[in-house]
Amino acid sequence: MLSEDLTPWTTALTDLGGQRVWSLLVSVFGDLAQEEGASIEGPVLSAIMTAMDVRPEATRVALHRLRNDGWITSEKTGRTSRHSLTRSGRAETILASQRIYARPEDTCLSWQVIITDGHEPKEEVREAGFTQIAHRIYAGPRGLAAPGDTLALTGDHVPDWVRESIVPQRLIQEYQSLYSILEQVSAAVSPQDALPPLGRAVLRCLIVHNWRRLVLRHPDIPPALCPAGWRGHDCRVLVTGLLDRVSRPAPAELKISA
Amino acid sequence: MLSEDLTPWTTALTDLGGQRVWSLLVSVFGDLAQEEGASIEGPVLSAIMTAMDVRPEATRVALHRLRNDGWITSEKTGRTSRHSLTRSGRAETILASQRIYARPEDTCLSWQVIITDGHEPKEEVREAGFTQIAHRIYAGPRGLAAPGDTLALTGDHVPDWVRESIVPQRLIQEYQSLYSILEQVSAAVSPQDALPPLGRAVLRCLIVHNWRRLVLRHPDIPPALCPAGWRGHDCRVLVTGLLDRVSRPAPAELKISA
Repeated sequence: MLSEDLTPWTTALTDLGGQRVWSLLVSVFGDLAQEEGASIEGPVLSAIMTAMDVRPEATRVALHRLRNDGWITSEKTGRTSRHSLTRSGRAETILASQRIYARPEDTCLSWQVIITDGHEPKEEVREAGFTQIAHRIYAGPRGLAAPGDTLALTGDHVPDWVRESIVPQRLIQEYQSLYSILEQVSAAVSPQDALPPLGRAVLRCLIVHNWRRLVLRHPDIPPALCPAGWRGHDCRVLVTGLLDRVSRPAPAELKISA
Repeated sequence: MLSEDLTPWTTALTDLGGQRVWSLLVSVFGDLAQEEGASIEGPVLSAIMTAMDVRPEATRVALHRLRNDGWITSEKTGRTSRHSLTRSGRAETILASQRIYARPEDTCLSWQVIITDGHEPKEEVREAGFTQIAHRIYAGPRGLAAPGDTLALTGDHVPDWVRESIVPQRLIQEYQSLYSILEQVSAAVSPQDALPPLGRAVLRCLIVHNWRRLVLRHPDIPPALCPAGWRGHDCRVLVTGLLDRVSRPAPAELKISA
């Protein structure tokens, strides 16, 4: 498969929406330059962003914003800029990566429902990784520690109304859209394909970015609690499968001779 | 032990309060004349009620009320009245007896907490045998079937706030008062005592009556969900132990020669 053959998929992934340039850059650095001391050269970054349909001016503005936010740092060696994650940007990236890159087999299958004593602020319970079902009632993976003095429970059968109260309908639809594209990309990209390094970088970043946008919007939800039509877990299977096949290009492979 | 020796205990049990005469009569018939075809002769009933400090006029009024309510039926043979439960009175008595006379070893130890979908009326869930903890949240013995589409759950640890939300403080205190008297009666009445038949009848009826008043006011609560200081289960242990020792007098034993 040639680089151009990827275009329909990168376009489809780009078109999924929610592609704020600064956020796209966070995904790019998170996937390609997370290692300590890693950086992306200016021309390589430009090539990747252009392939994602982002104008150079928009990339420049977004880089400026991320530098101001302390996320990215840039330095110039001769005529070439090198961009890398700051210490805190890298820490946040690593934290998020635990959920973004977690493999399907690491999904916690057992679940719990907790009932709070009513004194715990909602935000605190959510930050602990729980999803609200109703007033004072939350659900989450079994092992999760709940804040405060909660009644932790589990059961065998989960009625539909519980599954349906866990996530908004819109998130279910967004996962369905992502799943549909990932399924097509997965069918098109065979393990035997020797994709060009830049194509691999672009495809990986777009997959990670679209997945990250959804998966970081809600805490982990054990499969037994997921609503009908929920493609979150299926998306994770496709995402990890594709990232296994479309290997991350080494910096040397991406080098663009000036 | 002689009949007079029982007086402090029958007085203590009579003084526990809530002794409406018609309700006391229901306990008397429930304990002494629950068998099909069983009856209590007028003079025997008078003797029992007098021993419970109820004036004859009050007994007559209460009997009249229970006859009007279709609970009791009375017939005269010669100069002697015989009172017995009606068919429906007996049916209700048998139903209540399942909870009144249940032995401690029959207590369901495992528990469940259910969360309703919010459409089930409270009354329906309570009638099914559940106790409300909070809005849409109820608790009960494990095997109990819940109405509607509920999420049935269980767990290992039950925090104090859950136990404390299960029953009103007043009920806890009433069980404590009953427990304290039952404990003294239990210590005073040894299995070797040959109590007179009328004394046995009076003591049994007072024990059953005071126990019934509390135990029928709430559904069964598995021990793990009971609040600190809850004497409900301890009372059941004493009640069944005492009823075993203070045997029910046969009708012939109670016969009073006119």
